[in-house]
Order: sequence, then C-alpha cells, then structure tokens
Amino acid sequence: MHTKNINTHRIEISDSFSAAVSVDCVIFGFDENELKVLLIESDLNEFKGKWSLLGDIMHPEEDLESAAYRVLRERTGLEDVYMEQVQAFGAVNRHPVGRVVTIAYYSLVNISHVELKTHNNELHWHAIKDLQDMAFDHRDILQTCLERLQHKVIQQPVGFNLLPRKFSLRELQNLYEAILDVKLDRRNFRKKFFAMDYLIDLNEEEQEVPHRPARLYKFNHEKYNQQRKKNLGF
Amino acid sequence: MHTKNINTHRIEISDSFSAAVSVDCVIFGFDENELKVLLIESDLNEFKGKWSLLGDIMHPEEDLESAAYRVLRERTGLEDVYMEQVQAFGAVNRHPVGRVVTIAYYSLVNISHVELKTHNNELHWHAIKDLQDMAFDHRDILQTCLERLQHKVIQQPVGFNLLPRKFSLRELQNLYEAILDVKLDRRNFRKKFFAMDYLIDLNEEEQEVPHRPARLYKFNHEKYNQQRKKNLGF
Repeated sequence: MHTKNINTHRIEISDSFSAAVSVDCVIFGFDENELKVLLIESDLNEFKGKWSLLGDIMHPEEDLESAAYRVLRERTGLEDVYMEQVQAFGAVNRHPVGRVVTIAYYSLVNISHVELKTHNNELHWHAIKDLQDMAFDHRDILQTCLERLQHKVIQQPVGFNLLPRKFSLRELQNLYEAILDVKLDRRNFRKKFFAMDYLIDLNEEEQEVPHRPARLYKFNHEKYNQQRKKNLGF
Repeated sequence: MHTKNINTHRIEISDSFSAAVSVDCVIFGFDENELKVLLIESDLNEFKGKWSLLGDIMHPEEDLESAAYRVLRERTGLEDVYMEQVQAFGAVNRHPVGRVVTIAYYSLVNISHVELKTHNNELHWHAIKDLQDMAFDHRDILQTCLERLQHKVIQQPVGFNLLPRKFSLRELQNLYEAILDVKLDRRNFRKKFFAMDYLIDLNEEEQEVPHRPARLYKFNHEKYNQQRKKNLGF
C-alpha cells in the first residue's frame, strides 16, 4: 500500500480529521501512608459506576499540556504542580463513543492542598493497591504512569511533591515504600538520604502525634538544583 | 468553565471528532562513526525542500504502534526492530493543514539492513550533528527522542541494535560517544563493559580494515535478559 505521507503531501482526504484527542490525568496523592489516585465515577452506560481518570477532550485552541493543566485546575483548584506527560494510548476501540486517542499525564499533589470540585459526578481519592477494575483502558494507563513514577523517584527526588513541606524520615520512607511497593531497610534508607545531603534538619519535632515525636526535615530544593546541573553526562 | 468530561458523559458535540492523529518515526542508524537519522524531503509549500521525519496519519482501523511499524516497514523494509513510543506533540499550530497531534516513536536500526523505499520523495540518512532546520516541529521531536535515547543507553544496552552483530570495542565506544556526544576514556569504558559481562569474545578479528585488525565481540542477549529479571527493584 502506498501511503499518503502527512509530512510531504497536503491532505485531501477530509476524513483524516475525524479523531478526537483527549488528555487523561493520573493525579497521585499520598495520605495515611498510602499512594492514592484521584478518580471520578463514570456514568457512560458502558462503564456505569466504574471509576475513571480525570480527563477531557483537548479544545481546538489549546495545547495538550494546557488541556491537562485545565483538567487538574478545574477539579483540584491547583495550578502549580509537578506534571509530566507519559505517553499516548490509542487502541482502536478504547472509547465507546468513537476514535479517541488519549495523552496520559501524571501529576504529584499534596492532598491537603486539594479542594475537590465535584460538579455532578462523585470524585474520590483511591488507594492504588486496592484498585481493581476501572472504566476504559484506565487501569493500563494508571499502571503505566505508576511505573514511570517508580522509575522517576529512583532517579530524581520528585516524591517530595507528595509530602507536606515539613516531614519526618519515617514519612519519607513510607512514601518511597508506598510508591515502590516494597519494604526498605530503615538504616540503609536513612544513610542513602543523608549521603545525598538534600535534607535540611529543621530542629523541630512533630506535634500532637500518638507516638514519640520525630524530628522534622525539609527538602533542599536549591542544593538539589545545583547538584543536578553538575551531574549531567555519562 | 464547566467541562464536558469525556470519561463521564457521552459526547454530543460532533466537532470533538475533528483532529487528525499521526505518528512520526525518528529512525536512528549508526554509520561511519556517526549517529544518523532517516529523513524525507517535504514538498508541502510551507516547508519546500526542508527535511522531515517519516510519518503518516493513523488509519481508522490501526493502533498507534501499528501505524508506526507500518511507516517503518514501508520505508525501510524492516519489521522486527527496536521501537519505543516517546511522547505526543500537540501544539495548536504545529501542522499547516489542520489540527494534527502527532505521536513520536524512535527506532534503532542497523543501517546495512535497510533497503530504502523512496517512492516520490527523496529519502536520506543525515548525521544528527549536522542537522539544522527541519520542517514542522520535527527538530524538537528529534531532540526529545535523542534525549530519550541518551537516557536509555545509560540504563540499558539498547545501543547494540544499532551495531552489526559482530563489532569491535572501538566500534562500541564510537557508538556511545556518538549517541551521548561526549569523549569517553578508553580504559574506563572497556572496564565498565567487561565488568557487566555482556560481551562474548568471538575469537575472531576484523577483516580488510586499514588499521591493525581488532578482536570482534557480540552482545550476550541471553545473559542480559537473565540479569535484568534479577535487578528489578530499588
């Protein structure tokens, strides 16, 4: 078959412009030592009562990333959060309404900063480890985004976006354990983090906790950004 | 603005289905110690004579990945090659014909296995370091795919897909230097590769070369796949 190449020929076939492009946002949060994702209940007949990611059709006048930020802002009230495009999902029958190719983004938010805007459909934070069936191919999309996040947190300290500004080492370890779904050795974990030297000891302790209060730290963004510039290369 | 959520409401607005989705393939090859990319000359008025990536509109009945493999097969005759989706590019005015969101893939091929199928437009392997201006946003797409490849070759030995089956350590180092655009220390490079123990010494030497013939090696795919399964985790 001889192809009409979109990069070399003007397209005469008007039905090339017959797909819809959407964005779907995997919004990760961390709460009660669990990695969570923000989901909305679908009321499409095909997926009645099932949970789906937050997404929308890209508008004609907006870029993909703008569409993803719009979805996030409209549902959580947040603007300035960590967000990363992961990949496109385009299986032929992935959406019952027609050919919809969706671009998946994940973002990392501090749950306590989120003000949920529900409109008509129920919106809920779900612990990822308890999630089973979802609407559309959203379980696949979530899994792919989770794997990207797992890969990323080993390489870059993006996980701090999910924590409060002040946190204990126990909270930090809980976060990594929740994201990577493994148990980590307490001593090794602390040693590794202190060696990287990105934690600032605040000389404060946790308040009103049911256990012995732990020391609080914050992440040294400035130092990390300096180091990062130095470490580029093989 | 109150959004019609594509995951919760049946879409009545028919003009949601008015975008085109394409795939663009960054086909990397390695030849004469240079990292190259396969490009086609555009004859769209807007980009007359400029070089563009190989791409095409996704057909209604095919998945994104199938479309990318189709483009590759039609132009190079190759089927079974390393290919990876990188991300979607969807700036509002990226294509002069209309709203076209493109999904970028990169693939790694052995140039000597490629049979170029030119049809009407000129097709050519370009050294990446010499490339300047390109059609559309293809320079950005190429750069993003190159960065993904650079990231990947540090983590996984995918670079072997660009080499002949039998190669010398000099060729291997040249490949890494071309991809990463750095000079590497010969002794450290060899030490690192021998430590990973993925090279099989073929007890053969190069034939008909203008310099002292070097020993030839091949990549131990089996051992690598075994190791990889063991190394998952933090």
